[in-house]
Amino acid sequence: MTNEEILDIAHLAHMEIYSPKLEESVTFFKEMLGMNEVTRKGNSVYLRAYEDHYHNSLIITEHHEAGLGHLALRTKSPEALERRAAAIEETGYGIGWIDGDIGHGPAYQFQSPDGHKMEIFWEVDYYDCPEEEKTELLNRVQKRPNRGMPVRRIDHINLLSSDADKNVEFMQEALGFKTRERIVNEDDTHVAAWLSVTNLVHDIAVMADPLGEKGRLHHICYWYGQPQNLIDLSELLVEAGHHIEVAPIKHGISQAYCMYVYEPGGNRVELFGDSGYLIFDPDWKTVEWKGEDAARAILWHGGSNLPENFLAYGTPDRQPVEAEVEEVTNK
Amino acid sequence: MTNEEILDIAHLAHMEIYSPKLEESVTFFKEMLGMNEVTRKGNSVYLRAYEDHYHNSLIITEHHEAGLGHLALRTKSPEALERRAAAIEETGYGIGWIDGDIGHGPAYQFQSPDGHKMEIFWEVDYYDCPEEEKTELLNRVQKRPNRGMPVRRIDHINLLSSDADKNVEFMQEALGFKTRERIVNEDDTHVAAWLSVTNLVHDIAVMADPLGEKGRLHHICYWYGQPQNLIDLSELLVEAGHHIEVAPIKHGISQAYCMYVYEPGGNRVELFGDSGYLIFDPDWKTVEWKGEDAARAILWHGGSNLPENFLAYGTPDRQPVEAEVEEVTNK
Amino acid sequence: MTNEEILDIAHLAHMEIYSPKLEESVTFFKEMLGMNEVTRKGNSVYLRAYEDHYHNSLIITEHHEAGLGHLALRTKSPEALERRAAAIEETGYGIGWIDGDIGHGPAYQFQSPDGHKMEIFWEVDYYDCPEEEKTELLNRVQKRPNRGMPVRRIDHINLLSSDADKNVEFMQEALGFKTRERIVNEDDTHVAAWLSVTNLVHDIAVMADPLGEKGRLHHICYWYGQPQNLIDLSELLVEAGHHIEVAPIKHGISQAYCMYVYEPGGNRVELFGDSGYLIFDPDWKTVEWKGEDAARAILWHGGSNLPENFLAYGTPDRQPVEAEVEEVTNK
Amino acid sequence: MTNEEILDIAHLAHMEIYSPKLEESVTFFKEMLGMNEVTRKGNSVYLRAYEDHYHNSLIITEHHEAGLGHLALRTKSPEALERRAAAIEETGYGIGWIDGDIGHGPAYQFQSPDGHKMEIFWEVDYYDCPEEEKTELLNRVQKRPNRGMPVRRIDHINLLSSDADKNVEFMQEALGFKTRERIVNEDDTHVAAWLSVTNLVHDIAVMADPLGEKGRLHHICYWYGQPQNLIDLSELLVEAGHHIEVAPIKHGISQAYCMYVYEPGGNRVELFGDSGYLIFDPDWKTVEWKGEDAARAILWHGGSNLPENFLAYGTPDRQPVEAEVEEVTNK
Repeated sequence: MTNEEILDIAHLAHMEIYSPKLEESVTFFKEMLGMNEVTRKGNSVYLRAYEDHYHNSLIITEHHEAGLGHLALRTKSPEALERRAAAIEETGYGIGWIDGDIGHGPAYQFQSPDGHKMEIFWEVDYYDCPEEEKTELLNRVQKRPNRGMPVRRIDHINLLSSDADKNVEFMQEALGFKTRERIVNEDDTHVAAWLSVTNLVHDIAVMADPLGEKGRLHHICYWYGQPQNLIDLSELLVEAGHHIEVAPIKHGISQAYCMYVYEPGGNRVELFGDSGYLIFDPDWKTVEWKGEDAARAILWHGGSNLPENFLAYGTPDRQPVEAEVEEVTNK
Repeated sequence: MTNEEILDIAHLAHMEIYSPKLEESVTFFKEMLGMNEVTRKGNSVYLRAYEDHYHNSLIITEHHEAGLGHLALRTKSPEALERRAAAIEETGYGIGWIDGDIGHGPAYQFQSPDGHKMEIFWEVDYYDCPEEEKTELLNRVQKRPNRGMPVRRIDHINLLSSDADKNVEFMQEALGFKTRERIVNEDDTHVAAWLSVTNLVHDIAVMADPLGEKGRLHHICYWYGQPQNLIDLSELLVEAGHHIEVAPIKHGISQAYCMYVYEPGGNRVELFGDSGYLIFDPDWKTVEWKGEDAARAILWHGGSNLPENFLAYGTPDRQPVEAEVEEVTNK
Repeated sequence: MTNEEILDIAHLAHMEIYSPKLEESVTFFKEMLGMNEVTRKGNSVYLRAYEDHYHNSLIITEHHEAGLGHLALRTKSPEALERRAAAIEETGYGIGWIDGDIGHGPAYQFQSPDGHKMEIFWEVDYYDCPEEEKTELLNRVQKRPNRGMPVRRIDHINLLSSDADKNVEFMQEALGFKTRERIVNEDDTHVAAWLSVTNLVHDIAVMADPLGEKGRLHHICYWYGQPQNLIDLSELLVEAGHHIEVAPIKHGISQAYCMYVYEPGGNRVELFGDSGYLIFDPDWKTVEWKGEDAARAILWHGGSNLPENFLAYGTPDRQPVEAEVEEVTNK
Repeated sequence: MTNEEILDIAHLAHMEIYSPKLEESVTFFKEMLGMNEVTRKGNSVYLRAYEDHYHNSLIITEHHEAGLGHLALRTKSPEALERRAAAIEETGYGIGWIDGDIGHGPAYQFQSPDGHKMEIFWEVDYYDCPEEEKTELLNRVQKRPNRGMPVRRIDHINLLSSDADKNVEFMQEALGFKTRERIVNEDDTHVAAWLSVTNLVHDIAVMADPLGEKGRLHHICYWYGQPQNLIDLSELLVEAGHHIEVAPIKHGISQAYCMYVYEPGGNRVELFGDSGYLIFDPDWKTVEWKGEDAARAILWHGGSNLPENFLAYGTPDRQPVEAEVEEVTNK
């Protein structure tokens, strides 16, 4: 715990992923997940879900291999942005200021100890909805698209780390994230941690990379809130030839009813199919899963198995070196 | 196809299972599945779901090991009963008439080629609902019970057979069942068949027993019709310490959204969580799954694995003889 | 009850509706309900749902006013077709044989006592699915369409009648329908009846027309089987500017979770959002709702009101003559 | 907007309602909503939902008429409690400190301008779960109860006010609530406002009392998060003889799928059946509904009507004085 609570970060605003198959990836997010292409710049395509309020929540950038481009957090005020930039600067992980990008103003960029690129910003462009797409539901940004099973909004991102402890500590100390749940080894080091600055259980998760690689992406996640939507989406995905890695299951952690699929570029995408649970207690004690309990953390209802490489597969995809795998197994 | 269509059997009316832990089994069906205990006789307990119209749909009888007691089919008329009894008599699989049991009148008993005990009857007792349990919903037999996640009605039964082909043929020829879907080996012998006399895809399923045993039970099935009910039930089951063998999944065959759990006596129980699909076409061509397609037949949405012994586990539980297992594997 | 049970009719095969706005109606069924346009002939468009097995289940024909074109029932065999044609001929309601239409062979046409046009046929064309639309789910005819909230199959049709008793009797005596549930006046005449030849509670419903008009259509119904689908569809409909007459509710009769919307031509369309309940008892006693119970028959969960003209609105739309309305009210 | 953002209140912690039928009310919350009775003191019964983390979230106190006892907010820290108490003291609406109650420590009590009694506190007792009720789901406080359709947690409270503007302003200025959505009259005065200090759209709502009464309660709300749970609960409620005022509907405001029922004491209870939408934008602009839009705010999917006195019925129940009703109508 820090002595003084940091309250400067508001939420996860957008994510950039790399794809070696740009057009196929864009088609997946548009046709399967019902997202909108807002604009393009260079070799990047900007997309959003129909209840995302800002200009975009996802950027797909052409790249020779899949993985994380960067993630962006919005601060709670201009002052909060200044405060955080200064604090991160001091940690030595800072990169520096940029003037902004399509959709937002000046941003301070930095990286996690593991090298995941991140940025924080305050000024944001709200989505400028074309007249014909405006809805009478005034708290919704645009009409629900009539294709795919449309996701409603960005939910969270999950990062693989060569040193989970160090990355969790950075998120807590430099950015004010709180660890809501965690799975730990016998020596109390992290297998994984779920962190948030909101009432959600996680805006960002950090998991130990079983391959020991640096800066990989485990998955990005979009939100439905309705269990049946996952079943309907599964119908579309299977018949369109996409690979569902994990069909709808119930996690113990965050009580998420969710599923996992690979987008054509190779990045794993989670879909969140209910509301999980929310945390309102200002004095929340981190929920800690250890030893035998960990199985329940992943598969609360039991009865199925995750694929063997669920933890080890991330983007960019890396082949396990034999020695490393043994080390992992010995844990 | 038979030259002349047999239209004498109406539906699956009740099932008797054996349990070495009678009281624990009864408690499971009452407290978890919300069924009612109607009466007891000898070492048998008679139960029903709240939308079952007859006196009972499940009998649990104390026995040294789990398994099938018998299954009962109701005919469409008294004449249909006479006709079928005579026809079965001729097959050589007949046992003979009994005066009836609690809940129904005279029944003709027989066995499948594999030795599964069955009976057919016409006269039936409708459930005599106590005044305080009567509901204003006039098409429902009694109020929905306020405990567990109450199943609505009996659905189907699945039998393991040492010779699936022969048992499927018997169901078709002697009883008029139609094969709605089947999984076949390369040589066109049955891995499994789903048969019905109703608009359901199956009232009875027959599966080849990987252990080559005779007359075992794979599972009985009760019906909800609502996917969410399976998720709610899973919460109750897990926290009550029951073993969910397969958490909610989507079968390709019958399009069932379903799950599997072991009742305390060891019998597998399926819960059917949506409406699957119905067959109205009077000239239905059996849907046939073969080779690589078979995986989709079992796990339509992919993404999970069934436990290794899903096909081999049945009641009574038998240990595979090594030679037999190899033979199975070689297929 | 008839002395001899008639078992010749298999199910409701297709429905023809009239629309004064052909293209708008077609767009509604395609874009909102995800149906496919199979072909066109003259001023008629032939459509089907993705789990309908035959060539078509809906024909929309341009006409100066909305209403029923005809409904078609498939028989259980060629012999059943001959038998029924002869029997209907004798009732005096016969029209005569036609060679067939797109999608089916020779049909015998007739009308209900109220003048609703009907036909029965045996030979049918199955949908010839284009290669790219074929699915690995072998019991499904084509892939689930990726637009709208796609209905799965035809469910039932509901007819308004100037003389409900006479029309119900005709369906029973000439066609073998069984009355599964009914609402009756104090003098035991029908307010409405739900009839079927399948395990469904109704393939066809007949309701007394409060305006005393002849041969009107109350609604056609398509089936989803999943409650959430109605909520998702409602989002699409409202934002596309369609008029939802009744948002999702729970009927007591048939236990349907359902909703009602007007298609652009003016015909009412019901969407069936769960599995209701099924009838397997071969000796089913008609469920009878009377007096105060009738409110529960319509709105089982209570708490909302149907619009005032829910019973009186039908197609073609007719203005109530004052005297007629009083008469209705006095009942 | 205030110049300086107040961040002292964490969330709605518990609610006290009055009931003239204490035991019947308690039975309703226990048997229908699956809540637990934690303890009793004097003529008060303390209850909680199975995912409520604190000792209790609902107190039912015997009283000659139904209505609000008080509502309680937890602060974010001991310092926040001191700051708020001092600030409220200055408004003149303060009552004073109490030592605490069962389940929490020292609390500062005050009233809204309309006289609704409120309190804020920091120290809280977590629920001390009996060993046999503990669950392996470590983020859940106790096992899901096996009776009724158990609500998961407290959600929000809705207050009727003789002067909505003044009460909304008080909640904003003294407590730091933000107005997330509101319905306004032509002169920009409030019909209703939805306010929160969390990511929820509302922890507290304030609605103009059409009868002009002071300090009445419109409803309390508990949360499920799953639409199907409302349908299942409706079955239990109707068959137990409870009055469902509004069967499950979709609000535009907060996108709640919800229903309303009267508990036996007369207080209206809302059940929240999905996740609605969450607000993460730190610069959220209040969504404003006016004129014709207001109908969509209440019934987004249209198609049903709320009962006539949905807005005017509150507890304690008051008969409208004729003049008052006219005045309301003139607005």
